[in-house]
Amino acid sequence: MTHKPIRAVVVGGTGYTGAELVRLARSHPSLELTTIVGNTTAGEPIDKVLPSLQGVMSGDVQPFDPDAIAQDADVAFCALPHAASAEAVSALRQRGVPVLDLSADFRFYDLAVYEAWYGKHPVPELLNAAVYGLVELHREEIRGADLIAVPGCYPTASTLALAPLIERGLIKHEGIVVDAKSGVSGAGRALSSATHFPEVGEGVRAYKAGAHRHGPEIEQELARLAGAPVRVTFVPHLVPMSRGILATCYAQPSSASATAEACTLAARALYEGSPSVHVLEVGEHPDTLWVRGSNRVHVAYTQDPSSGTIVAMSAIDNLVKGASGQAIQCLNVRFGLDEGAGLGATAQWP
Amino acid sequence: MTHKPIRAVVVGGTGYTGAELVRLARSHPSLELTTIVGNTTAGEPIDKVLPSLQGVMSGDVQPFDPDAIAQDADVAFCALPHAASAEAVSALRQRGVPVLDLSADFRFYDLAVYEAWYGKHPVPELLNAAVYGLVELHREEIRGADLIAVPGCYPTASTLALAPLIERGLIKHEGIVVDAKSGVSGAGRALSSATHFPEVGEGVRAYKAGAHRHGPEIEQELARLAGAPVRVTFVPHLVPMSRGILATCYAQPSSASATAEACTLAARALYEGSPSVHVLEVGEHPDTLWVRGSNRVHVAYTQDPSSGTIVAMSAIDNLVKGASGQAIQCLNVRFGLDEGAGLGATAQWP
Amino acid sequence: MTHKPIRAVVVGGTGYTGAELVRLARSHPSLELTTIVGNTTAGEPIDKVLPSLQGVMSGDVQPFDPDAIAQDADVAFCALPHAASAEAVSALRQRGVPVLDLSADFRFYDLAVYEAWYGKHPVPELLNAAVYGLVELHREEIRGADLIAVPGCYPTASTLALAPLIERGLIKHEGIVVDAKSGVSGAGRALSSATHFPEVGEGVRAYKAGAHRHGPEIEQELARLAGAPVRVTFVPHLVPMSRGILATCYAQPSSASATAEACTLAARALYEGSPSVHVLEVGEHPDTLWVRGSNRVHVAYTQDPSSGTIVAMSAIDNLVKGASGQAIQCLNVRFGLDEGAGLGATAQWP
Amino acid sequence: MTHKPIRAVVVGGTGYTGAELVRLARSHPSLELTTIVGNTTAGEPIDKVLPSLQGVMSGDVQPFDPDAIAQDADVAFCALPHAASAEAVSALRQRGVPVLDLSADFRFYDLAVYEAWYGKHPVPELLNAAVYGLVELHREEIRGADLIAVPGCYPTASTLALAPLIERGLIKHEGIVVDAKSGVSGAGRALSSATHFPEVGEGVRAYKAGAHRHGPEIEQELARLAGAPVRVTFVPHLVPMSRGILATCYAQPSSASATAEACTLAARALYEGSPSVHVLEVGEHPDTLWVRGSNRVHVAYTQDPSSGTIVAMSAIDNLVKGASGQAIQCLNVRFGLDEGAGLGATAQWP
Repeated sequence: MTHKPIRAVVVGGTGYTGAELVRLARSHPSLELTTIVGNTTAGEPIDKVLPSLQGVMSGDVQPFDPDAIAQDADVAFCALPHAASAEAVSALRQRGVPVLDLSADFRFYDLAVYEAWYGKHPVPELLNAAVYGLVELHREEIRGADLIAVPGCYPTASTLALAPLIERGLIKHEGIVVDAKSGVSGAGRALSSATHFPEVGEGVRAYKAGAHRHGPEIEQELARLAGAPVRVTFVPHLVPMSRGILATCYAQPSSASATAEACTLAARALYEGSPSVHVLEVGEHPDTLWVRGSNRVHVAYTQDPSSGTIVAMSAIDNLVKGASGQAIQCLNVRFGLDEGAGLGATAQWP
Repeated sequence: MTHKPIRAVVVGGTGYTGAELVRLARSHPSLELTTIVGNTTAGEPIDKVLPSLQGVMSGDVQPFDPDAIAQDADVAFCALPHAASAEAVSALRQRGVPVLDLSADFRFYDLAVYEAWYGKHPVPELLNAAVYGLVELHREEIRGADLIAVPGCYPTASTLALAPLIERGLIKHEGIVVDAKSGVSGAGRALSSATHFPEVGEGVRAYKAGAHRHGPEIEQELARLAGAPVRVTFVPHLVPMSRGILATCYAQPSSASATAEACTLAARALYEGSPSVHVLEVGEHPDTLWVRGSNRVHVAYTQDPSSGTIVAMSAIDNLVKGASGQAIQCLNVRFGLDEGAGLGATAQWP
Repeated sequence: MTHKPIRAVVVGGTGYTGAELVRLARSHPSLELTTIVGNTTAGEPIDKVLPSLQGVMSGDVQPFDPDAIAQDADVAFCALPHAASAEAVSALRQRGVPVLDLSADFRFYDLAVYEAWYGKHPVPELLNAAVYGLVELHREEIRGADLIAVPGCYPTASTLALAPLIERGLIKHEGIVVDAKSGVSGAGRALSSATHFPEVGEGVRAYKAGAHRHGPEIEQELARLAGAPVRVTFVPHLVPMSRGILATCYAQPSSASATAEACTLAARALYEGSPSVHVLEVGEHPDTLWVRGSNRVHVAYTQDPSSGTIVAMSAIDNLVKGASGQAIQCLNVRFGLDEGAGLGATAQWP
Repeated sequence: MTHKPIRAVVVGGTGYTGAELVRLARSHPSLELTTIVGNTTAGEPIDKVLPSLQGVMSGDVQPFDPDAIAQDADVAFCALPHAASAEAVSALRQRGVPVLDLSADFRFYDLAVYEAWYGKHPVPELLNAAVYGLVELHREEIRGADLIAVPGCYPTASTLALAPLIERGLIKHEGIVVDAKSGVSGAGRALSSATHFPEVGEGVRAYKAGAHRHGPEIEQELARLAGAPVRVTFVPHLVPMSRGILATCYAQPSSASATAEACTLAARALYEGSPSVHVLEVGEHPDTLWVRGSNRVHVAYTQDPSSGTIVAMSAIDNLVKGASGQAIQCLNVRFGLDEGAGLGATAQWP
């Protein structure tokens, strides 16, 4: 490649999302991840904080310095917790740095919804400038955006499974259920008894059933497609694996012609030209293992012959298409690169 | 104990259900498991076939001899595949042996439903004599029964979660969804690529979505309580753990008074006097790890405040309350013992 | 049973060892666990702290009150961290309460060895009164002891595998290697990145290779049998499972007659009358899954035909025979009960 | 790249090694994997046989046709079982096709050793033509070789950990122990109760202790470096994870100057210029998770201060550096490409 690479920094880069951004950037033809910023680990060698980088990447974790970033970097990834992220994003945007934000801070169109779930927003005036970074549904807006709110794992898996059905009017807007199963890395690197190995292994459980922050985010994106409110009951579960999300979605058909085949065709139509999405045949079931380590999404549709209920399923790797891979996909679109640049890796199976 | 123990044989006892029957029988005060019958392993030392029995139980696996069983045993557990089980049960019933059958062969009230899902029934004339062995819902019938059709893991978890809501009229009979997550031992000991460790670890997937044999069995039991047809969309999933089932069930409330609290009260009322069932508080979520190795069922109810959808959850150990423990619970009731005899073990956590 | 049960309290009972003591005590015919003492959780409902006890055991975690214990209990289990345990033990012994201590505080015969590895001993004057609670090797001493230092998982597995070979003079005292593989529950309930699910799953690693505190404890017990110093290189590993320890031990034969068969015979002789130990045939390999949830030990011996190296293997459940089961086994012996009382449970397989 | 890519076929490509060759080849700048040959699955769509290839690679599995391969391919990977592989290799070599063979058939210098462990060799006359494909130790020979015997996971991990110590004379040639822990994918895709999920999860066990075929292979490579016989006791273990091998090796120092620091320096010297190997600091311990999905090897050395025993540890991904990545590394050297071409991927952590 003869072009100068895009120089990026990752703010909050010492968690799993950061490790994955480093991994993906290293095999990207036009992206150079120059600096990793971390608050609590600033000054520590990056390969001690992220042990997979031993012998691969050297240097220390850096403190957050927005002026230095504005000078040295073409773009910043922000992978901080919500609220903290908004502050950093604001500092970077004031200095003109394009930002791919992986927090929830700029994902909502409606400030009131954000504040109902996350508390007071530090910089609400930036909300209007943000674009929702699900490339398959917001490709055009992302091209011109300087603040892209990259959605997380649950909304990505759920929305991509249901979007074709909503867009084509195949399902009713009420009574939708999303039963999602997540690997434990989705909970991040912060320690908790809920992620302590002996209390996770050999166990599966729901959490925040019907009351998780990602429910309204899924509803927002589906409502936008529907042009009308959509109600989703969202129940996340933790399963004893490190990576992967499977979303099993249930909806009532809007008419007798809303068959599994019709859903499959709708998805093929909507995702034509979307290199990350693969629509399985009717009767096939996605498996998170089949996409592990890749930016791919497997979706599939079936129908209960007796009740008529439509079952829409999707599998992603929560740290790739559900976080860091998606952020790079947004960057590719924003900077006019090939959408799949650096994201072509085949899943690691088994 | 001064009474003579009940002498039992287990036919088809060299799989996981058999191993678990041996384990549970050994800590039962009034049950003696005298013989393990196995077709393909007859003549092999039982502690080579079931390695946890090394130094614990000796003797060889026996061929099936119904006359010997009739002479030596007070009762037989049958843990054979469907159809094969019906043949063995028939032979044993002809000789007057009471049978606890863990196959699907005698679980359906309607021969047509059985034959739609399992094929031709070998001994349909026995169907009427059978009682469905879910003690919490069929306690009285089981007392006098000589052929008890012990339900398996999915119907047990699903039915116990939903039964109180149906019985009290709290939910509608249409649009019910059961999204169940099972450990791999539920698939039994037969080898398959679907249960090969490298293709299971780090993966979660649905299978037979909306088309699994256990769907109509759940519908049958709920319809019996409802006195009317009930429609359930049943989607089982495999998760990378050995034991446990979590059923997450979704239903529409029949009225505004059908709250999570009302569901919880309904469950407490229905399961009063049922030593195996524990109803969690509203806001709590069951975890399969919390019941692992025990005959206990944890159920809990919550409600999506925005859509109103009721979420009913239950966790069991698929090999205990979902198979062998349940069979022993039936035996206890049938033989007039304390319902929880030999089943009081606390879960192994972690 | 017509005798009054033995009333026990567990101090530090809100970790995994405590949960397991409750589980085992509940199926013990002569032991009643009346009180669970916990420092940081005093006042909380016990079934919230130990979720497997929901619907099984009620009441709150109690603060430590040695006078109350002296009044109400016949014996105390101490499951506190080292040093803290010694203080509690001292308070209980001053009041005449027999103590089964699961910490390291009273396991060493030589104060200097303790202090080299654990720091200053709070009550060194109690060291002489303590007996090492490995029943298979210290049965007689335990009968009369009021302070029993129950060994942990690694020393139990390692010592039981090697003891017969040392006792019969079958192996050299130098060049012994113990390569141990532990499930993660062995690290306890304290949170750490080393036990955070995503950093444990799909990984295996050694830790503190050749420098772990349990090395000198194994050497102490083998030296006692040898009547001479014994050198062991002890390397523990963490493997992605919740329970179980496998110790693979390597030693040089002392003569040509020290074959795998001779080792097997030595083990059968030493462990005759020890209900917890089962010696496999030459050529068999123990598996931690085969003893999971039980107080059993599987040991086996083989020999490398070309180098002559003896391989001694043992498998235990780290929380049962490696902790709580062993403590109850000691209690049984101390109180003149059957050694296996309450410990007869068959392993949960699978 | 302006050069024509190297066109490769993989014979026996429908197992895990084949899937991994496809994955790695797809991100290789100069390698094109054109054809996947499989015996039992010939004619089936490749993305049904290898589900991670859905939407990524199409076409059917092909039958073995050495003439077609000779015409269309520049090189063949053979990933067949031993003996079958030798037959295919022979057919390909007769047609002049360079072969990277992943079976054991051409790894031994001494026919007698091969036949003692694997039975009669189908084409012993080819043995002399083969080069052992461990690039770090055979780089020069591989450059000119047309038959490269790519070693498997255990010998790779074990030999790379011990080679520097043998080469520098730091350890004695007797009394070496290799205690290796493998993920289950190392056992391949063939079904067996030993790899059935419920009998693997929550268990760890040795197998073929001191009698595994890879022992003599490790001895061969170390003896070559030593210029004298070397004795290794090799004991493999299965641990409940899909990928990864950790080899923990124990050896006696040849002199007082053979410290952990000396071992570390020896490894740094030997592996200077080897891009796949990273030598950790003394006191660090490799973790298979830190290299998962990469072609990297982490090695580390420590010493038991009391016994003097040297502990050499190494971690690899068994399917990458232990199989397919190593084969591509050999191909790179053989065809004059950069040794790390296509192998630079960072490990997937977590």
